[in-house]
Amino acid sequence: MRSRIRAMNRRAILSGAATLLAAPGIRGVAVAAAQADPLPSWTEGGPRQKILDFVGRVAAAGGQDFVAPAERIAVFDNDGTLWAEQPIYFQAAFALDRVKALAPQHPEWKDTQPFKGVIEGDPEALAASGEKGLLQIMAATHAGMTTGVFNGLVADWLRTARHPRFDRPYDSLVYQPMLELLGYLRASGFKTFIVSSGGIEFMRVFAERAYGIPPEQVVGSSGQTRFEIESDGTPVLLKEAKVEFIDDGPGKPSGIDRFIGRRPILAFGNSDGDKQMLEWTAGGTGPRFLGLVHHTDAEREYAYDRQSHVGRLDKALDEAGERGWTVVDMREDWKAVFPPQAWSAP
Amino acid sequence: MRSRIRAMNRRAILSGAATLLAAPGIRGVAVAAAQADPLPSWTEGGPRQKILDFVGRVAAAGGQDFVAPAERIAVFDNDGTLWAEQPIYFQAAFALDRVKALAPQHPEWKDTQPFKGVIEGDPEALAASGEKGLLQIMAATHAGMTTGVFNGLVADWLRTARHPRFDRPYDSLVYQPMLELLGYLRASGFKTFIVSSGGIEFMRVFAERAYGIPPEQVVGSSGQTRFEIESDGTPVLLKEAKVEFIDDGPGKPSGIDRFIGRRPILAFGNSDGDKQMLEWTAGGTGPRFLGLVHHTDAEREYAYDRQSHVGRLDKALDEAGERGWTVVDMREDWKAVFPPQAWSAP
Repeated sequence: MRSRIRAMNRRAILSGAATLLAAPGIRGVAVAAAQADPLPSWTEGGPRQKILDFVGRVAAAGGQDFVAPAERIAVFDNDGTLWAEQPIYFQAAFALDRVKALAPQHPEWKDTQPFKGVIEGDPEALAASGEKGLLQIMAATHAGMTTGVFNGLVADWLRTARHPRFDRPYDSLVYQPMLELLGYLRASGFKTFIVSSGGIEFMRVFAERAYGIPPEQVVGSSGQTRFEIESDGTPVLLKEAKVEFIDDGPGKPSGIDRFIGRRPILAFGNSDGDKQMLEWTAGGTGPRFLGLVHHTDAEREYAYDRQSHVGRLDKALDEAGERGWTVVDMREDWKAVFPPQAWSAP
Repeated sequence: MRSRIRAMNRRAILSGAATLLAAPGIRGVAVAAAQADPLPSWTEGGPRQKILDFVGRVAAAGGQDFVAPAERIAVFDNDGTLWAEQPIYFQAAFALDRVKALAPQHPEWKDTQPFKGVIEGDPEALAASGEKGLLQIMAATHAGMTTGVFNGLVADWLRTARHPRFDRPYDSLVYQPMLELLGYLRASGFKTFIVSSGGIEFMRVFAERAYGIPPEQVVGSSGQTRFEIESDGTPVLLKEAKVEFIDDGPGKPSGIDRFIGRRPILAFGNSDGDKQMLEWTAGGTGPRFLGLVHHTDAEREYAYDRQSHVGRLDKALDEAGERGWTVVDMREDWKAVFPPQAWSAP
């Protein structure tokens, strides 16, 4: 009896250790792969097998493809890679909803583009206002307030807004197979980062809840902030209407270098804006995994690639073919797309 | 005998677990404080006791000052806080050495300021060239090459250059008590970051070796980089002679927000350039620790504060007095300043 208790205790200690091994950010530890299927929503074979093979190789201590845990950096685009991006980028939906919410305080918007187009639900007028119009909308909705106020607005919106087609909160439209992949990588000693053209502050509001990715592992586009002490002595950061950094296309390798300072060994994207991130990741020595999510599932999600205005996948798809990058066919390779309806980001 | 082996094994398992607990980045774990003195180079009482009290409070599960590990963010200035900064900032010493090394390829420098002043060792001419001269030197030594080439130059310099007074490698002139503090914080579930006006790429070359701070936890000033594919197909990042971000003074709260995205609960600096970082850290709710290293030890290191051109500590010293921030008197509070002579960053 006594020895049985002792054996149990030892098992408890070891299983406690296994939990520790799976904790994010831990180093110097090889994780046993003999566990429950880490990728249950991925179809057998294909990309799933390539992922399992790659992770197994880099985590195998003593193997020729072993990569020290500190170097196991994985980067993921967000829009269209970790969550949906149709019919418009979700951050754009937030911005348009903000314009509508602010309209009563701005009677002049009724007669001024691009705001008139937003308020009247006229996408053509909005499109006609071009990049200048977009910058005006961003300035009106993403600047002129403290970072704290902005974060609160995003949190409120995520709680109340619903996706027009799926009638679910936007942050529940994350891809179940990618959640599994993120967890599997972290359990295998990887540090997972978002590298997205989306707004860094916008993403940080939900990235930790939705993906288990903490704010300090989110890289994105940003506007400048200005430090000020308010009249009551409170220090604040004011969001200014000045672009600081655009983390898209060739900006992604720069963003990775600036924020992470190491070259990733795994990169996942879904559009031409991710091409240079995958090229930069591929350019290092040692084992590499390059992946693209190909949106092929009009029934469960959306089907789009070379002609799409949102998340266009054209040149990067050609390059994937030429260089043997892994292309995930959403319809074929994913058993599930979104988490169950009842799921919501915790 | 058998039970002794069993006991040893159990001890080995437990001590392995203790090592895991001390691993950087681990979450959800309270670390028992009953261990060897974590701060042996700090004099009894004073700042040492304040640090121990603070860390004990925030790490005590169930206590009213408990802070979840994910929120245990600690930020440190680098120059003058983690390593020395006299007689000139070490990165400036690197830049001047680079000018001398490059001079044979630039015969025109013999007759052109600020390079002439550097080559002839004429600090007055150099000072007279002002900020414009400094930017010229930075452009000549920190730009026009790939990030990989630059990192190699810094690594070579750290290996070969010696500090003029101490005749030691620059990266051995780190503060022993601060190394202990960094380790103690990490063992207590903190994530430690550098937030410095120094160049982010320069610091990353040695920060992991010297401080145990990985590249992705270094925040600093930067120049822009540009992604390019070289003619042989190699992707590179070129360092351009354009300032991207100055992480100093009011820039430090912006840098913290941009890179970390959480407000720290502990901040340590040594100069007026750290004032806003400490104010921003102090401005959050819950327990806070604000520290300043005061250079009071001309014998073992340097003594300077309100009048110094390097690392001036004037307004922040006044504010520390008014607000009860912890001021470390280097002469009184540190038993040792640098690691032993034989030590070098691994």
